[in-house]
Amino acid sequence: MKEHRIYNFNAGPAALPLPVLEEIQENFLNFAGSGMSITEISHRSKWFDAVIEDAIARTRRLLKLDDRFHVLFLQGGASLQFCMIPMNLLPEGKAADYVNTGTWSTKAIKEVKIQGKTVNVVASSEDRDFAYIPKNIPFNPDAAYVHITSNNTIKGTQWAEFPETGSVPIMADMSSDMMSRPFDPNPFGVIYAGAQKNIGPAGVCMVIIREDMLARVPQNLPTMLKYTTFSEKNSMFNTPPCFAVYTLQLVMKWLEETVGGLDKMAAINEKKAGMLYDFMDRSEFYRGTADTDSRSRMNVTFRLPSEALEQKFIQEATQAGFGGLKGHRSVGGCRASIYNATGIDAVSALVDFMKTFEKRNG
Amino acid sequence: MKEHRIYNFNAGPAALPLPVLEEIQENFLNFAGSGMSITEISHRSKWFDAVIEDAIARTRRLLKLDDRFHVLFLQGGASLQFCMIPMNLLPEGKAADYVNTGTWSTKAIKEVKIQGKTVNVVASSEDRDFAYIPKNIPFNPDAAYVHITSNNTIKGTQWAEFPETGSVPIMADMSSDMMSRPFDPNPFGVIYAGAQKNIGPAGVCMVIIREDMLARVPQNLPTMLKYTTFSEKNSMFNTPPCFAVYTLQLVMKWLEETVGGLDKMAAINEKKAGMLYDFMDRSEFYRGTADTDSRSRMNVTFRLPSEALEQKFIQEATQAGFGGLKGHRSVGGCRASIYNATGIDAVSALVDFMKTFEKRNG
Repeated sequence: MKEHRIYNFNAGPAALPLPVLEEIQENFLNFAGSGMSITEISHRSKWFDAVIEDAIARTRRLLKLDDRFHVLFLQGGASLQFCMIPMNLLPEGKAADYVNTGTWSTKAIKEVKIQGKTVNVVASSEDRDFAYIPKNIPFNPDAAYVHITSNNTIKGTQWAEFPETGSVPIMADMSSDMMSRPFDPNPFGVIYAGAQKNIGPAGVCMVIIREDMLARVPQNLPTMLKYTTFSEKNSMFNTPPCFAVYTLQLVMKWLEETVGGLDKMAAINEKKAGMLYDFMDRSEFYRGTADTDSRSRMNVTFRLPSEALEQKFIQEATQAGFGGLKGHRSVGGCRASIYNATGIDAVSALVDFMKTFEKRNG
Repeated sequence: MKEHRIYNFNAGPAALPLPVLEEIQENFLNFAGSGMSITEISHRSKWFDAVIEDAIARTRRLLKLDDRFHVLFLQGGASLQFCMIPMNLLPEGKAADYVNTGTWSTKAIKEVKIQGKTVNVVASSEDRDFAYIPKNIPFNPDAAYVHITSNNTIKGTQWAEFPETGSVPIMADMSSDMMSRPFDPNPFGVIYAGAQKNIGPAGVCMVIIREDMLARVPQNLPTMLKYTTFSEKNSMFNTPPCFAVYTLQLVMKWLEETVGGLDKMAAINEKKAGMLYDFMDRSEFYRGTADTDSRSRMNVTFRLPSEALEQKFIQEATQAGFGGLKGHRSVGGCRASIYNATGIDAVSALVDFMKTFEKRNG
């Protein structure tokens, strides 16, 4: 742990790679010899062009996207995508399949209904408090699309493999596990991710949209709510969130050049999650909340024997330099979010702390 | 001019106060003793609470807003407001008055029409290429609202005084002159400003909305497009653009504590604009494009005797350390944007450069 820095287990906004932060800091008054801060340069300048083009190129390489995919940077977070997807891609007279795996899926489903469109919740894990990812889902072959939440930050579950949907495109909210592992992008119509967990700071949402989806976009939508507005102008119809895109670019560079790509990132993430789950599985004191086969490698949710002990745990952990271990306010308990930028050293230190805490309080 | 820094006359994103940039840089790895970067802290933390509350409090004091006004931070820029205003605040069966003073007004008008709502363009300066602000406008007393663009970055015009609209609320796009001068906020239903000119970096839009406007918001809008979603959750229904809000907060602090408020800021801006306009009025070589009584104190647009000379001027100015002097790509010519953070020293240096250039080329 670098001096003055804590072990950051925040659920989002979350830890960013230290070399990324240091590069931003070093160049903050004079970006790329421009004589201006990254926050002061024009989005129409050669400097910002290089930033956004590099961010796109690295994203394409990391995810192995072919030319059919557009990489866009929007504002409004994943929450705005909840309404833009049905608005743009669910034609009148058609229905969409949604899988409900928790808070974020529920919000996405709500936005379809607000628009008066038809949503079929084809599977849900609500019966057991969203502790698992549903299996053997009866998807509708004529659905306009299937929507899933690939990782559920609050309940600590994650799709280990993505579902087979035949020719029906998948729309996936990958806000909390984007770039944490490799996957085949081809079945996806839209992949979207609020940056503030794995790929950047709050204020930019990466939207990857397949070319054939753009043909569905109705002509009469408000300009800023049409995917084509962004795809036709390389995300620069209006001023993009330049600083957030720049930070995201540096995170993609770190993933490619320092980590060495998504296979290596996934191996590190497996190792980190394994350290925590293996320890908890051997402990009678800590208890994971998600079903074993649905466990998230990003958000490890767990309980202690009592709420009083949980409170004590979080308090002492904070004093010992571990941040963000409180569970989401809607569910309580504890949660260690171990996104890409949270290192093995941090997880190792946390396991040690958990052991010590158990010894003193178990 | 600080070492390695240029004189920044960008139209937006634009110059930020150097002390703001230096404070960001200094604290970038450890914000307020949190052991995390401002980009890594939770928006639900005590640290970010202090940031957003201070940003709001300073905005209230600077603009003398009473309790009826909500200060919100949205994403999507002013461009998203073009559609949110009619969507939220123009009821079916009513019409809105719009004044067309250039590119941005035209875009705002277009978004009303896309929604199939009724817009009355009650005045336009299109007849003379938007070189002036219309006078004696026949506003409709039963309009749902009047919409204006307070400053026109591309054509270099600005409302010297805001129009009298009786009891009809004014919706004002103040993206390019927000916080550049004091004004009476009470006639305004909504004041909105993309931050990236006068009040912060790209990625956040300040929206000030009067309480009585919120009663107009239809229940059935998508959640992220309703003003009430943001007013009821203090702009934190979902993750806000934390870094942009933080930078904005520091700009408000600079305005209050270093500049000394909007009266003093306005005096400085008057002086800066006066230096450029007075010089051009005495020159036969440089020619301002806006009518004298409609001139912007933010964007000084001007022409040289030929396009070849304009190109040479911009090129030599760039080499001499003056950035952003090219006119908007839609109109050509030259433009010096002199927002709050562009100092008197920069304007003085520019006038000197212009004199020298005229001597060599006049």
